[in-house]
This record gives sequence, C-alpha cells and structure tokens, in this order.
Amino acid sequence: MVHFFVAYEQPSDVAAFERHYFDVHVPLAKRLPGLRSYSISRNPMTVRGVEPSYLVALLEWDDMDSLRQDFASPLGQQMSRDVDHLATLCPGIRSTVFELEAL
Amino acid sequence: MVHFFVAYEQPSDVAAFERHYFDVHVPLAKRLPGLRSYSISRNPMTVRGVEPSYLVALLEWDDMDSLRQDFASPLGQQMSRDVDHLATLCPGIRSTVFELEAL
Repeated sequence: MVHFFVAYEQPSDVAAFERHYFDVHVPLAKRLPGLRSYSISRNPMTVRGVEPSYLVALLEWDDMDSLRQDFASPLGQQMSRDVDHLATLCPGIRSTVFELEAL
Repeated sequence: MVHFFVAYEQPSDVAAFERHYFDVHVPLAKRLPGLRSYSISRNPMTVRGVEPSYLVALLEWDDMDSLRQDFASPLGQQMSRDVDHLATLCPGIRSTVFELEAL
C-alpha cells in the first residue's frame, strides 16, 4: 500500500478553500482509477514541530506504479493544476508519498 | 482509528540516529499497550513543500482515549524524553495526531 499524506496549513481564505477543496478537488481526486481511499481529518494536533495543520488528508494506492500512472494521466495533470489553485487559497501545503513497511 | 504521523528530516548524525531509533526508540514504542501498528518508510518523497524527509513513521491506535492513556503512562513519558534525545540527533522532527474520516 502506498500512502499520500497532505498537510494543509491555515488557509488565507477559509471559505474559498473549503468550497474549492470539497466541491472541486476531492471529486476530481476520487475519479483517479487507482485511488483506493481518501480520508481527511479536520482536527489534526501537532505533537512536535511548528504550526498546527488546518486539515490533513491520507490517500491510498495499491502500489507506486498505480500512483505514478494516475499522476501522469490527463486527470492527474488536471489535479496537479488544481493543487496550484488550492495553493493560492492555502499557501502552506506539504505532501509526501511513502510506501510503508511494518516493524 | 487514530494515526500518529512522524516525519524526520535528515539527521545530523545518521549512524547514531539509526542506532538509537531502531535499538531504543522503536522497541520502547512497541511496549505501549494501545499501539496497534508501527510502520515506517525509508524513502518518502516530497511532492510539494520544502525539505524531503529522511524517514516517516505511521503509528496507529484504536481511538484517541487509548492514545492519550499510552502517552500519559510512565512508559509514554519515557518515550517523550526519548524523542527529546532523538531530537539531538535529528533536529527536524514533526509529528501530528489525527483521526480520519473517509470521504
């Protein structure tokens, strides 16, 4: 399983961010054929580090190949441009892709 | 399910960090009674944001109560001091606790 973790800092325009995130961004992402799950948390707590996040999201793909295929597709490219738009409403977006190994 | 996500930046002393993390920190954490899983990734990729992480970890608890209980226990306090020690070997540690809702 490959995870895609995204942390959004406090948006500069909360209402516009919320509208665009839930009405445009999430529905776009859910059309990606390899996406297995899309979960969010609205009340993440920072235990260590600087700023608390406004919202975090955890998305799952079966493996790195299916994630790469989705990201490279026309829909994936559209997603990427959509994140550029989200970044105008929420300047602090950090995202990380990782494949877990259980300890 | 409650997730505890930790991102470690490049350690200032990789060998000492690796030794302490795997020989001391992980075995300590695995003794927490409420911990359901402890997974790591050694090759996380930054998609958006500043610095790539050296290592990320994702830990799971059943719910916020069992996490809080573990964190408040003597073992949890020992863990917290151990993270202070890890931070001397790896100054950039960010950790976030969140409860996911599926979209």
